[in-house]
Amino acid sequence: MHVETLEWAGGRPGHVRMIEQTLLPGRHEVIDVATVEEMFAAIRRLAVRGAPAIGVAAGYGVLLGTQDLAGASGDEVLARTRATCERLAESRPTAVNLFWALNRMRTRAESEHAAGRDGDAILDALFAEAADIHAGDRDTCRRIGEHGAALIQDGWTMLTHCNAGALATGGMGTALAPIYVAHEQGKRVSVYADETRPLLQGARLTAWELMQAGVPVTLITDNMAGRVMFEGRIDAVIVGSDRIARNGDVCNKIGTYSVAVLAARHGIPFYVAAPLSTFDPDLAHGGLIPIEERAPEEVTEGFGSRTAPEGVAVYSPAFDVTPAELVAGIVTEVGLIERPDTARVEHALALGGRLQTAG
Amino acid sequence: MHVETLEWAGGRPGHVRMIEQTLLPGRHEVIDVATVEEMFAAIRRLAVRGAPAIGVAAGYGVLLGTQDLAGASGDEVLARTRATCERLAESRPTAVNLFWALNRMRTRAESEHAAGRDGDAILDALFAEAADIHAGDRDTCRRIGEHGAALIQDGWTMLTHCNAGALATGGMGTALAPIYVAHEQGKRVSVYADETRPLLQGARLTAWELMQAGVPVTLITDNMAGRVMFEGRIDAVIVGSDRIARNGDVCNKIGTYSVAVLAARHGIPFYVAAPLSTFDPDLAHGGLIPIEERAPEEVTEGFGSRTAPEGVAVYSPAFDVTPAELVAGIVTEVGLIERPDTARVEHALALGGRLQTAG
Repeated sequence: MHVETLEWAGGRPGHVRMIEQTLLPGRHEVIDVATVEEMFAAIRRLAVRGAPAIGVAAGYGVLLGTQDLAGASGDEVLARTRATCERLAESRPTAVNLFWALNRMRTRAESEHAAGRDGDAILDALFAEAADIHAGDRDTCRRIGEHGAALIQDGWTMLTHCNAGALATGGMGTALAPIYVAHEQGKRVSVYADETRPLLQGARLTAWELMQAGVPVTLITDNMAGRVMFEGRIDAVIVGSDRIARNGDVCNKIGTYSVAVLAARHGIPFYVAAPLSTFDPDLAHGGLIPIEERAPEEVTEGFGSRTAPEGVAVYSPAFDVTPAELVAGIVTEVGLIERPDTARVEHALALGGRLQTAG
Repeated sequence: MHVETLEWAGGRPGHVRMIEQTLLPGRHEVIDVATVEEMFAAIRRLAVRGAPAIGVAAGYGVLLGTQDLAGASGDEVLARTRATCERLAESRPTAVNLFWALNRMRTRAESEHAAGRDGDAILDALFAEAADIHAGDRDTCRRIGEHGAALIQDGWTMLTHCNAGALATGGMGTALAPIYVAHEQGKRVSVYADETRPLLQGARLTAWELMQAGVPVTLITDNMAGRVMFEGRIDAVIVGSDRIARNGDVCNKIGTYSVAVLAARHGIPFYVAAPLSTFDPDLAHGGLIPIEERAPEEVTEGFGSRTAPEGVAVYSPAFDVTPAELVAGIVTEVGLIERPDTARVEHALALGGRLQTAG
């Protein structure tokens, strides 16, 4: 029902089919990515974006770099795997999921090689590993969707910010997953999408993928969210996250914090949907999260024409931090962390095997 | 020190010199407007905008239509005055200040004519009236600036939304006037300007005029205001207003309400600067103010290229209402209305002669 951001096509040898996201929302084009260099370019130009989707793409990218080695030695397959991982790691050096997926692929090849498997067996293992990365992501999204859908009542209107949807993952998304599942379940659910300046992920991506899925969506500029809440149009907010501290403070796209403050004023529950992999147990609280500053041109020339005076000073933090006290709950693949605090986050991480419990 | 939006040039006969605001911020061009039709076109294409500035332009427009009548009869001058007013009234039929200024000009001509003055005497009176409209606006802005500057401490950073500056008036503006006066007084004052989607008045106009005046300004997208406050960068907020109810509820550009809610969370005072003419004593509270809805294209194609899917639903209220409880004070030409409520607003309106007091 939701769009498929990318998938493996054609068996062995095969290729990746992916939505060319740089053309959205004007054109919906699906491209074939058949070589490591094509995948490198696709990741670099943001044809595929969103941490989970990049991880899936990286796994498949390793297959593109090795699948021609049928019949080759284990040494050859391992060497090619390593070289391909090194190359793909340079495509987007700040994407944590990229390294995580490439590590999984390389480690799998190394352990198969160490166990004395031949080249074809290592290739089999790589295909299985890439498929497993994708299946794991799909499964995580679906579980988030099911846990989150339980919070959504028939007839509700949700507000979301940025894009944490199918286009950002190998599955049905994170923030949008509960909406897709509620829609599947026959609940009437509709969405207000903040356009999300400066890069307009809400206007370009969230509005587009919800329309594709037949979920009613209304686009607003970011500064309209307060008025829309004031008018009683919103029942709940749901957003994704880039990083969550151990106490439940949520780092997400700039503007999320404003939405959370506005929701609090109007008594509207503010939910975050994120896989456990988003949590960073080493961060005691959100104040420790460094906030990337983006290029001024994204603000002053964001639409192909200059909209601000030459030489004007710009401040453009890419993310903000929403304190846990404003968060009604974090929806994860192991369930809802209600009114998150350190103890509840630790409990969920332990459930998911991401943290050893003391007790 | 601030830019001059428009002025009468060349004596009698003369013409209007005005900044061609449709070219900002890319080009700073001053145009000569010498005929009624040129003024009509300038108002219509928004070369001059902002309620007070339109009023001043309309007054001068009547001079452009009548100044060739030196030596003509009183009947001729009155007839031409009426015809010019009728024509200019069609330039922007929703601009209340346009009608207010045209009424002043026509009424002046009528009363001079009724008193038996000849054509030249009526022309003298029209020149005096237009100059008086402009001088009154300048004076109001300056008084707002002085009352407001008293609130601004040395070293403060202000946040503003939209453009309520010199470019919107015949003087130094409303929201920006206190900043200009504080700057004149030698206080170090700097500004964060919200870009103000959808029409980007903050990016295009506020940032530009503050740079022209040498006031340090930093541009942000609307959804960054919360983060900027969270980081402790803002000492006070000041905005203009389109309409203020008798209880102090403030109608202003969409997004103002969000800024007010964010300011309240951070304990930052939220000020409004507006002339008494902005108050509507017939409106008991802001809930009675009708909110205009704007065309979807301003959101989906605001920058010369389409940034949202074809056919997407858009909700685009042009204004919002900030409840008086969030307003630390309203700066007017007769002083500060602190923590506005109905009694305090009525007191200020009576001071300004805009309301009869019962006591």
